[in-house]
Amino acid sequence: MGNVVCDVNASADNEVEAGFVLDFERAQRTGAAEAILADGKSLDDLVAIARASELRGNALLFTRLSERQRDHMTGVFGGAFHPDPASATAVFGTPPNPVFRNDICIVSAGTSDATRAGEAEATLRFHGITPRRIHDVGVAGLWRLLDRLPEIREARIVIAVAGMEGALFSVLAGLIEAPLIAVPTSVGYGSAAGGRAALSSALATCAPGVLTVNIDNGFGAACAALKMLRMMERP
Amino acid sequence: MGNVVCDVNASADNEVEAGFVLDFERAQRTGAAEAILADGKSLDDLVAIARASELRGNALLFTRLSERQRDHMTGVFGGAFHPDPASATAVFGTPPNPVFRNDICIVSAGTSDATRAGEAEATLRFHGITPRRIHDVGVAGLWRLLDRLPEIREARIVIAVAGMEGALFSVLAGLIEAPLIAVPTSVGYGSAAGGRAALSSALATCAPGVLTVNIDNGFGAACAALKMLRMMERP
Amino acid sequence: MGNVVCDVNASADNEVEAGFVLDFERAQRTGAAEAILADGKSLDDLVAIARASELRGNALLFTRLSERQRDHMTGVFGGAFHPDPASATAVFGTPPNPVFRNDICIVSAGTSDATRAGEAEATLRFHGITPRRIHDVGVAGLWRLLDRLPEIREARIVIAVAGMEGALFSVLAGLIEAPLIAVPTSVGYGSAAGGRAALSSALATCAPGVLTVNIDNGFGAACAALKMLRMMERP
Amino acid sequence: MGNVVCDVNASADNEVEAGFVLDFERAQRTGAAEAILADGKSLDDLVAIARASELRGNALLFTRLSERQRDHMTGVFGGAFHPDPASATAVFGTPPNPVFRNDICIVSAGTSDATRAGEAEATLRFHGITPRRIHDVGVAGLWRLLDRLPEIREARIVIAVAGMEGALFSVLAGLIEAPLIAVPTSVGYGSAAGGRAALSSALATCAPGVLTVNIDNGFGAACAALKMLRMMERP
Amino acid sequence: MGNVVCDVNASADNEVEAGFVLDFERAQRTGAAEAILADGKSLDDLVAIARASELRGNALLFTRLSERQRDHMTGVFGGAFHPDPASATAVFGTPPNPVFRNDICIVSAGTSDATRAGEAEATLRFHGITPRRIHDVGVAGLWRLLDRLPEIREARIVIAVAGMEGALFSVLAGLIEAPLIAVPTSVGYGSAAGGRAALSSALATCAPGVLTVNIDNGFGAACAALKMLRMMERP
Amino acid sequence: MGNVVCDVNASADNEVEAGFVLDFERAQRTGAAEAILADGKSLDDLVAIARASELRGNALLFTRLSERQRDHMTGVFGGAFHPDPASATAVFGTPPNPVFRNDICIVSAGTSDATRAGEAEATLRFHGITPRRIHDVGVAGLWRLLDRLPEIREARIVIAVAGMEGALFSVLAGLIEAPLIAVPTSVGYGSAAGGRAALSSALATCAPGVLTVNIDNGFGAACAALKMLRMMERP
Amino acid sequence: MGNVVCDVNASADNEVEAGFVLDFERAQRTGAAEAILADGKSLDDLVAIARASELRGNALLFTRLSERQRDHMTGVFGGAFHPDPASATAVFGTPPNPVFRNDICIVSAGTSDATRAGEAEATLRFHGITPRRIHDVGVAGLWRLLDRLPEIREARIVIAVAGMEGALFSVLAGLIEAPLIAVPTSVGYGSAAGGRAALSSALATCAPGVLTVNIDNGFGAACAALKMLRMMERP
Amino acid sequence: MGNVVCDVNASADNEVEAGFVLDFERAQRTGAAEAILADGKSLDDLVAIARASELRGNALLFTRLSERQRDHMTGVFGGAFHPDPASATAVFGTPPNPVFRNDICIVSAGTSDATRAGEAEATLRFHGITPRRIHDVGVAGLWRLLDRLPEIREARIVIAVAGMEGALFSVLAGLIEAPLIAVPTSVGYGSAAGGRAALSSALATCAPGVLTVNIDNGFGAACAALKMLRMMERP
Repeated sequence: MGNVVCDVNASADNEVEAGFVLDFERAQRTGAAEAILADGKSLDDLVAIARASELRGNALLFTRLSERQRDHMTGVFGGAFHPDPASATAVFGTPPNPVFRNDICIVSAGTSDATRAGEAEATLRFHGITPRRIHDVGVAGLWRLLDRLPEIREARIVIAVAGMEGALFSVLAGLIEAPLIAVPTSVGYGSAAGGRAALSSALATCAPGVLTVNIDNGFGAACAALKMLRMMERP
Repeated sequence: MGNVVCDVNASADNEVEAGFVLDFERAQRTGAAEAILADGKSLDDLVAIARASELRGNALLFTRLSERQRDHMTGVFGGAFHPDPASATAVFGTPPNPVFRNDICIVSAGTSDATRAGEAEATLRFHGITPRRIHDVGVAGLWRLLDRLPEIREARIVIAVAGMEGALFSVLAGLIEAPLIAVPTSVGYGSAAGGRAALSSALATCAPGVLTVNIDNGFGAACAALKMLRMMERP
Repeated sequence: MGNVVCDVNASADNEVEAGFVLDFERAQRTGAAEAILADGKSLDDLVAIARASELRGNALLFTRLSERQRDHMTGVFGGAFHPDPASATAVFGTPPNPVFRNDICIVSAGTSDATRAGEAEATLRFHGITPRRIHDVGVAGLWRLLDRLPEIREARIVIAVAGMEGALFSVLAGLIEAPLIAVPTSVGYGSAAGGRAALSSALATCAPGVLTVNIDNGFGAACAALKMLRMMERP
Repeated sequence: MGNVVCDVNASADNEVEAGFVLDFERAQRTGAAEAILADGKSLDDLVAIARASELRGNALLFTRLSERQRDHMTGVFGGAFHPDPASATAVFGTPPNPVFRNDICIVSAGTSDATRAGEAEATLRFHGITPRRIHDVGVAGLWRLLDRLPEIREARIVIAVAGMEGALFSVLAGLIEAPLIAVPTSVGYGSAAGGRAALSSALATCAPGVLTVNIDNGFGAACAALKMLRMMERP
Repeated sequence: MGNVVCDVNASADNEVEAGFVLDFERAQRTGAAEAILADGKSLDDLVAIARASELRGNALLFTRLSERQRDHMTGVFGGAFHPDPASATAVFGTPPNPVFRNDICIVSAGTSDATRAGEAEATLRFHGITPRRIHDVGVAGLWRLLDRLPEIREARIVIAVAGMEGALFSVLAGLIEAPLIAVPTSVGYGSAAGGRAALSSALATCAPGVLTVNIDNGFGAACAALKMLRMMERP
Repeated sequence: MGNVVCDVNASADNEVEAGFVLDFERAQRTGAAEAILADGKSLDDLVAIARASELRGNALLFTRLSERQRDHMTGVFGGAFHPDPASATAVFGTPPNPVFRNDICIVSAGTSDATRAGEAEATLRFHGITPRRIHDVGVAGLWRLLDRLPEIREARIVIAVAGMEGALFSVLAGLIEAPLIAVPTSVGYGSAAGGRAALSSALATCAPGVLTVNIDNGFGAACAALKMLRMMERP
Repeated sequence: MGNVVCDVNASADNEVEAGFVLDFERAQRTGAAEAILADGKSLDDLVAIARASELRGNALLFTRLSERQRDHMTGVFGGAFHPDPASATAVFGTPPNPVFRNDICIVSAGTSDATRAGEAEATLRFHGITPRRIHDVGVAGLWRLLDRLPEIREARIVIAVAGMEGALFSVLAGLIEAPLIAVPTSVGYGSAAGGRAALSSALATCAPGVLTVNIDNGFGAACAALKMLRMMERP
Repeated sequence: MGNVVCDVNASADNEVEAGFVLDFERAQRTGAAEAILADGKSLDDLVAIARASELRGNALLFTRLSERQRDHMTGVFGGAFHPDPASATAVFGTPPNPVFRNDICIVSAGTSDATRAGEAEATLRFHGITPRRIHDVGVAGLWRLLDRLPEIREARIVIAVAGMEGALFSVLAGLIEAPLIAVPTSVGYGSAAGGRAALSSALATCAPGVLTVNIDNGFGAACAALKMLRMMERP
């Protein structure tokens, strides 16, 4: 897979110029590009970050890009800015061409979990990997999940994305040998509002081998998977 | 099954004698005995309640009986007091002989959920029904649950008892036609402490047809099941 | 009532065509139509789901439909799309003609609980049943509730819908023989914000036989009721 | 009723002698005695407080007295210390003889709420008033409450004591003209643990005229009632 | 003050005409008008409620009226609808002329608490009482509060309105003989968000005689005060 | 630095004129200007406060000024109103010229924390001090923080501003001798939503010498720093 | 490392004999032994589980063993039962001899985190691996952590164990290439009580590549690490 | 005051001998002794820490020492161990003789807050300072606080210790020029349980200049005060 690194919110403190400096030295050392969490940043911040990156020829991944941010960036940078509305991400510049690998698999429970599953996929693709995607295998229809087990079992790392009560994490972890990274999503209402129920399920699971990241953090799950892959490939 | 009623904490306010009067009139009208939540009641209260019941020839079910309460009552009433330590319940007096019915089934996830599943069973037996019991079918070992499905599917009402992340509720509800009454248990630690994660899972489930009662409330689940059965038998 | 089934979010993972496939096989097996939770789905998703259903001649129930979603679907499908703004639901296609049954009753506490009570009613009607509806019987004016008791007592299943402090659940359950399904609503502010107080009341009730679903989940309550009815009719 | 005042934890900072000085000046000005919250105080603190009071001839009310504290004080002061285990209170010295008044009424829902109802009663008696007590009128058996309504309606102030889901507060407030002071109790488990559900119900009530104090604060409810009575009697 | 009653959300279940019937019988019996909580009701609901009231000649108080609701009602009813934007209330019809009484006093801590203090005042005025209002006496500037003490001490009932940390409740209650009704407001951010810190302070106060209502419930505080006053005037 | 004082929400209750009176007497006594928390105040309130201040020749600091409030005030007062959008503050009138001091330092973790760091800086500048600002030294890139340590160690008071998990507080406090005032920010999502995780970290820190203020309260941190400085300068 | 599997609470449902049957078939298939969570199990349950295991020649790992459970098991089984009080674990029977591997490293922040770090280590050793252990490197003394970095960087998987504010997770993850599994511990008080602050920090971390398990779940972290190692070794 | 440093939980990772090594090098560099948080440490740990300290001639401060720990240490070390039960602290060895300083003042609200106020005082004394102590000045009796104001105003740093609703923090901060360090205590019940209400009050205060530490953290407050004093004395 080569050298990969996940950096979000990367910026330094050169106050002379733009108010921040991307961590290009680290980027150059590792050969990887960087990711910017767009949520909470102003339009001016985003443009300045992209410009700074452009000067050095680095590609950038933007996550949690709002519609308004997306339109603004497209207006400023045109074809150099490649948004993916389904995952609320965008690539600025030219990342490596991803290759399909069956040993990393993203499994999602419902249609509404697609954005976060997409964020995980976009992060992996930005780092050169096209993972397998398995959709709509929530446990309320257990046979759908069981039908896809052979494919899922090919993976060495499984990212599972689910909201509501998050039962998918426990059920799936009990059926596979690979470690499972749970991404609880903020899909749900009432006692599941904001993803609390799904997060609790990931943490309280009776199935060993479940690891979790913050609610809706598809990016973080992909970064952890990239770190695992890198370690697997370390001699 | 005949006429059944579930009354807990039943007492009235005749202050002349014992400080309380059990709701015998209602009991006589419905032909059923009563249940007493022992937790939080003094030893004197429990003895007085049993004595008042004794005078009228009613049987009583005690739930959440501590070891100390159990020993005290046995000391006072001897063989008329029938404790069941495994479910922390006891019967005082002579309830009807229960008969086995395959149309009500209690399913529990782990060994630690046995007390609450036992409380539900004791409540049903006290009202004349021996339900089917299925143990140790947590979703981390899915095949155990699937092996028992044919039996579970014979039930018209399923009571599911689970702690930790409570994934059993969603998985099982997706596999059966009967309504499922979830009893989240206070088994777990960290983000599952006190049963919160299991309760959230029961409420946030993606599987339709799941109903829930309070954490550890096996008695309440059995009462609801008895009400359902009674309605099923109403002409 | 015939064969009924409640499926929400039903979709499979045939990625070739629309990105999802409704669970038509199960639908055909059970003779019932399906329900789609509109909240959190894009306009494109909703149209595609309706189109897929149309091809096979199935009716669909949409719940939690926003005004914007409703207008869009009406614009696309015209008279084939039957929205009910008062319950935020819609029917696509032609469901069976519902018949009135006095043995299922929906009781609501305040005017603001009407949407969720309506969701439960729409779900029942979609499956062929017109329940009795009792409005505005909050416990602050107890005589209103007592006046309607004879009608409520005809029911074999009662769905109670209440926000604020949710005292209706305990009071009503103590007055009827039928099991009561509580639908706590997110009506309230301060310590009742988001339905928390009503949900706690449903769970902590001193009245046996109360079962609860998630906050605002009128659909889930109706599904559980349908499962109960089906079991009552199983020979 | 005369002049009454409720002071808890009263002590000043004369460090020369006992480490604290009771607020005797205020006590003498108002003609009333003082109350000491025993919970969290050492045995030595309690003895010293009683001794300081003894020197000046004041009566003292102790609340939330543990069994160990009670035994110790009885051992030290003998007959001058009058404990009431049922309410976990004690009187040291000689308070005024209480007189029965039908215009203040304490209503409690279950047997387990008796301690806090007793604390409110003891506080009133210490200030010269014997209130009416109504027991065991939880809403799960509504007729019990309705039977006692004529007596309750004689009151100008009603203190209602309830745990679990606290539905009593809303139901009773809707049936009387007097203001209702709710004392939520820590009776309950699961989602009602620690009195949370009952407190939420008191705050979120749909019945106007409900006021609440902290969980288990029978003393505070009585103090507020005493303040109201005093104001009623102010010319 | 005459006979007063506070009814919010009042409506019955005559389904023939408007979908609800106001509780006019009770209103006529007590000689008082009614209050409608506008928040969460549709424009059509509000118009229908006003029309039904108009037919019978009753005045109505609307609380928590949004700007949009206010404008719509003014457009429909013109001069018969008297909105008060500062308290988000409105009067429909002609309530009795209020008279000033110095024995009821509303004290508020900061400028941002004015809306809820105004709601309490509007409720009192609607029932014929103009209370004393004391503004801007938060405890951070203690001398402001102390300067106004003589006026506040004339009151037999004090309503205190405060957000943030709600220290006003404890400080003021320690300085007056009258009972204090706390109205915690949702003014604040961070750990005070939604009024939680102020509510906790009202409940946990070390000063006896503090009673509280739900966050932002100025209406409820006024209703309780009206009930107290009525009882004070009962022979 | 001279005499400084921090007053927010300062106003009194002279109802004759503007509805409030700023605390000018205290201001004149201390020689300092005042601060107004704009959030939650109406446009009319803000204008009236500024007018009252203008009459007496005092400068005012506005914090948490929304875009709409800012535009309105600029429209009314023109060049006398000096807004700073980056910190959501504004100065009305002419405060003292600030002087740079290296003994007070504001350190922030991420770009999104800049608004609250700016609020702290604006408050200090309004009182005559230009602090050192250190940006973008979050702990995920530890070397950035270590690079700036020599400058930070010159400070006698450090204000640290961080959201997300707030690890900066513990790490930095362990590296400096000066006390550290933590400003947790509401930057984050999921389990960090609203600043909860950062606040918990500031409170639970294993590094002694960390003090905290409310989430997002840059103003409060600066006020505490000003009080410290004043005490340092007291003979 | 060979084939490893982590099973906790493993038991089946052979009701004829012991009430449960360990999952020996799976154990034999994978060549690994099993783990039993002792917490919440009765002494009789533990003895029966050990006996059942003994018959088949399997080794067992017990976790969260109380002192009382430990003494009882030692009394029953003598030298065949090998308790490790420092990690609250015990081995029954003879597991494989562990070998030291520098590519898995357990790092703990404080002395009080040693029990959970020990549980992770015991789990790894039971499965044949002796990990590197690094103690007492909390971030309040940053140089201690930096001193040990070269050793930590040899690991392909790092398990970090910390309570209080859990800043170690973010700091360490920013310094290493390996994925980090966070074990928040219930060390702390006040806002850190029960491990909440440390868990929030692990989830909300600004450092990518952090994965977390439930509070105090050292066993779960080790299981996930074993799954990762196994996948690394899969051809 | 000289050079002071506050180190809690100080230990290093010399695994050869005792399992930990105190941070003596830093201690020697700063000339100050160290503090050990006893809570959560075993008796053996405490003895070993004291022995290690003894060898080098350092004094140690132990905080949160349980009765059992205290007795054990006294048994082992005799007169070299100086426990102070009132503050749950102990000194091992010989710290510097403290001198009284009127510019640091500890103010506590109630008798039950004395332990945490004592912990702050013991920490200061261990570092050579005897602060002024003001007891029993809770806001429910405001005049007690006002009487002591002249003394409190002499302080350059005020540590305020309060449980329940914590109103003391806001009231006192509004009356003094010095910064105030709030120590919320876990005194209280119901909605104040565990110190939550007092902590919220400290954070949400309307009085500028309030800083807070974790619940019950008297040690942390003293450490921050020591850091402030040291900075005040830095040239």
